[in-house]
Amino acid sequence: MTKGTETRQAVLDEAARVASRVGLGGLTIGSLAASTQLSKSGLFAHFQSKESLQLQLLDHARARFVDLVVRPALAAPRGEPRVRELFRRWLAWDADALPGGCLFVAASAEFDAQPGPVRDRLARDQRDWLDTIAQVFRTGVAEGHFHPGADPEQFAHDLHGAMLAYHHASRLLADPDAAARATRAFEALLLAARRPTT
Amino acid sequence: MTKGTETRQAVLDEAARVASRVGLGGLTIGSLAASTQLSKSGLFAHFQSKESLQLQLLDHARARFVDLVVRPALAAPRGEPRVRELFRRWLAWDADALPGGCLFVAASAEFDAQPGPVRDRLARDQRDWLDTIAQVFRTGVAEGHFHPGADPEQFAHDLHGAMLAYHHASRLLADPDAAARATRAFEALLLAARRPTT
Repeated sequence: MTKGTETRQAVLDEAARVASRVGLGGLTIGSLAASTQLSKSGLFAHFQSKESLQLQLLDHARARFVDLVVRPALAAPRGEPRVRELFRRWLAWDADALPGGCLFVAASAEFDAQPGPVRDRLARDQRDWLDTIAQVFRTGVAEGHFHPGADPEQFAHDLHGAMLAYHHASRLLADPDAAARATRAFEALLLAARRPTT
Repeated sequence: MTKGTETRQAVLDEAARVASRVGLGGLTIGSLAASTQLSKSGLFAHFQSKESLQLQLLDHARARFVDLVVRPALAAPRGEPRVRELFRRWLAWDADALPGGCLFVAASAEFDAQPGPVRDRLARDQRDWLDTIAQVFRTGVAEGHFHPGADPEQFAHDLHGAMLAYHHASRLLADPDAAARATRAFEALLLAARRPTT
């Protein structure tokens, strides 16, 4: 990595930490300059505008999510073991990767009614992720771990709901049972996936 | 209602519409003055500070949620019919009550890592609501509609997850199947609640 690339990565790491707590809208080049001890003009040279910073931050967070969750989950054996690894790593991502939890949860709620490039990027990333979950679930149908009538897109939607409820319970409510509840929700989804649909 | 109370209610209605789109943090007394065509000094006299405005707005939204969702749901027959009415009205609240969807979804994700009175108020309101859902579910156990071993707090947590997934799918992804998916998730939770826990 060149010096410029290193600096850029370090600034985006710090930006991700800040935005996970205060949202993308609360992240300013000025506050980022203060927390990274770089000059505002230097940061403007790297990121041009607040919107450009937000988009680069989303790409940075996406790459980190792929490294920490998607790629290792896809390395697990097909079917239920892969679904379990995906859930385990996703939960750990929201719990540990950033001080304010999953950046995408906060950003999605923040930008869902604000049309523009940031909302478009978020929607694309979230659709990709739901597609990935559904695809991993399908390997479980193919392996005979789940019922052939189970709906992979519905499973992806429901698992996403379980993770959003976990984020809410652990972050806003500081519920000590949040991870246990998320795990019970996950096991109930797997149980339902093994049964014939009614 | 006095003229002052009427003005205050009208301003809070407009504040709720704005905050549902841009978040509590994006709501300023200045922008509210512009959209209500009232003077900034007049609004300051009503609300004192941005934080005070945010807290009064949360109380206003809570009262509206009680009117539109909680009270009518509690008027339905005990047990499963009451759970169904609660779900139906909650879904309609997120779909229709405000232009940006449920204010509490956006505010929770926005403030969950920002300690202070707004976060405390939100956490209290959300705990009250989860307790209400669990209590309504318990009437279904008492009426023999749900299995005695079913966990009311887990049901409340899971139903909340289904509503968060609905909000995300309908708002960020503009998914035309969002309501159908939420309904399937709800029916699966009811089905599981009728079965013995494993």
